[in-house]
Amino acid sequence: MGEFELIRQFFTRPTPRAVLGVGDDCALLQPAPGMQLAISSDMLVSGRHFFADADPYALGHKALAVNLSDLAACGAKPLAFTLALALPQADPAWLEPFAKGMLALADAHGCELIGGDTTQGPLNICITVFGEVPPGRALLRSGAQAGDDIYVSGTLGDARLALQASLQKLNLAEDAMSAACLRMDMPTARVELGMALRGIATAAADVSDGLLGDLGHILERSDVSATIYTEVVQGTMHNAAEARACGQDVLAFALAGGDDYELVFTAAPANRAAVAAASESSNTIVTRIGHIDANTARKPCLRLIGADGTLLPDRYASFDHFST
Amino acid sequence: MGEFELIRQFFTRPTPRAVLGVGDDCALLQPAPGMQLAISSDMLVSGRHFFADADPYALGHKALAVNLSDLAACGAKPLAFTLALALPQADPAWLEPFAKGMLALADAHGCELIGGDTTQGPLNICITVFGEVPPGRALLRSGAQAGDDIYVSGTLGDARLALQASLQKLNLAEDAMSAACLRMDMPTARVELGMALRGIATAAADVSDGLLGDLGHILERSDVSATIYTEVVQGTMHNAAEARACGQDVLAFALAGGDDYELVFTAAPANRAAVAAASESSNTIVTRIGHIDANTARKPCLRLIGADGTLLPDRYASFDHFST
Repeated sequence: MGEFELIRQFFTRPTPRAVLGVGDDCALLQPAPGMQLAISSDMLVSGRHFFADADPYALGHKALAVNLSDLAACGAKPLAFTLALALPQADPAWLEPFAKGMLALADAHGCELIGGDTTQGPLNICITVFGEVPPGRALLRSGAQAGDDIYVSGTLGDARLALQASLQKLNLAEDAMSAACLRMDMPTARVELGMALRGIATAAADVSDGLLGDLGHILERSDVSATIYTEVVQGTMHNAAEARACGQDVLAFALAGGDDYELVFTAAPANRAAVAAASESSNTIVTRIGHIDANTARKPCLRLIGADGTLLPDRYASFDHFST
Repeated sequence: MGEFELIRQFFTRPTPRAVLGVGDDCALLQPAPGMQLAISSDMLVSGRHFFADADPYALGHKALAVNLSDLAACGAKPLAFTLALALPQADPAWLEPFAKGMLALADAHGCELIGGDTTQGPLNICITVFGEVPPGRALLRSGAQAGDDIYVSGTLGDARLALQASLQKLNLAEDAMSAACLRMDMPTARVELGMALRGIATAAADVSDGLLGDLGHILERSDVSATIYTEVVQGTMHNAAEARACGQDVLAFALAGGDDYELVFTAAPANRAAVAAASESSNTIVTRIGHIDANTARKPCLRLIGADGTLLPDRYASFDHFST
């Protein structure tokens, strides 16, 4: 089967909102008058971001979800995406479920596949996603203020727990394993929460590389420090007790596990009711985990407070794609 | 050196036209009022689209040029791009010239790097490029009409000639080799020509997979046939004589060599002076190579007429990333 035939068969869909979709040199998009376009690009590599034998349906879902998560962190409404795909071979038995998983999530968010590229090569999935947001309403990393509350959505650490269990570093009961794997393989992008937080959150980022690292980006760009209550963070995690019983550093999973695709965001204490309303309207749990402090040193500083109120050493470095 | 440090060092640039550039979850772009956004994405894989030891400066140039070529084919003005990059290792000695080659071309076209992703993996370069075009003025593949002239820009076949010489399948004199390699390694995207052809060309595509294949896309989407004069096509090629003396099928290089990044376009005969003016104003040679015919069968048909006026067999199949 040729490249063009492949594209046609699995990825050509009606694109009612785009002026022109798959099949020309470019796709054409007509942004709504006055709206800003939010753009993000993520590349997923076999053996690094997913196992080579990953279920293709889940992988299709995840590849788009991690991109939608970036739109969520900006409070942008998903519009469209492009897909560039390098494949070792053109295997319809893999491509069909992969496309289905991806397009099911795309349909759920009204996000159209408008173009892309297919080539032979080591499995690599690169998606660029487009969303829209009214001017001045995007959630940025740079707006956190001393005194703001810090929140996370959903649960943290479950994806890392699933990874450790997959690598046979710990045993989980069957139910716990399924739940954790679902979080690793089929993450939920917090798109509705992000949009609901426009005008409420002062800063936001998505938690893809671990809470501390991604919160660190907010601190750096906002030029502020933060205090985090680690027991509260750990409390968001499912199955923390089982993991601890297996001798795992559960707190490290929650603080620096990565692959969570939750939102970490800040908001003024005066907006607690508004945050609760955004949580409710988007049907997404949020947990207040700490607060923003003014910088006392020249660099942003992250204080971790343990269960007994003592300061923990900051040994929970963020995941880095090159240094780990 | 960590991932984030790498990005900062080589790829963070001022982005005066974007609302928000590299460093947040999304970039923010404010399209000019009423304009349509043209979007294209191309993925380049080591060992498939370039040699693993390719000069990084030239590779940086080429990776962006092949994307700009898609904008050119739509007549769009380049605005911005995202870069997703998988690298075996974070090597500043490679990254610095790669970034320089890419950003020099970006600067020449006023095209800003606004975001992207970096990860470890087999070398893979995925660029998504954004351009703008007034509504209804984009050049599409679908507008060719029976009776239209067919043109190509620049020269065809030189990149394939360079590839064959690099693989030691033929010998070229040093000057000829340098000229051919420049065409393979540092292609010129015909952006100015594409913009100048708005309102003049009835259809256009960029020649990335070989003239016949890419013209074939125009025929298919316009539901028309075509006649091409092969001697005229071959006449655009540099060093055709040397290559033929080495026993190479020179015509195949020009018709189906691939990697040319020229434009193939159609225009009504009444617009010959306008095409000449667009060629002149964009400082880009164009050559009239044939004409569009009405379909006589159910499928588009491509007739190749040789030097002596006889019909050639169509054995010049297009390059396909999976079937070759």
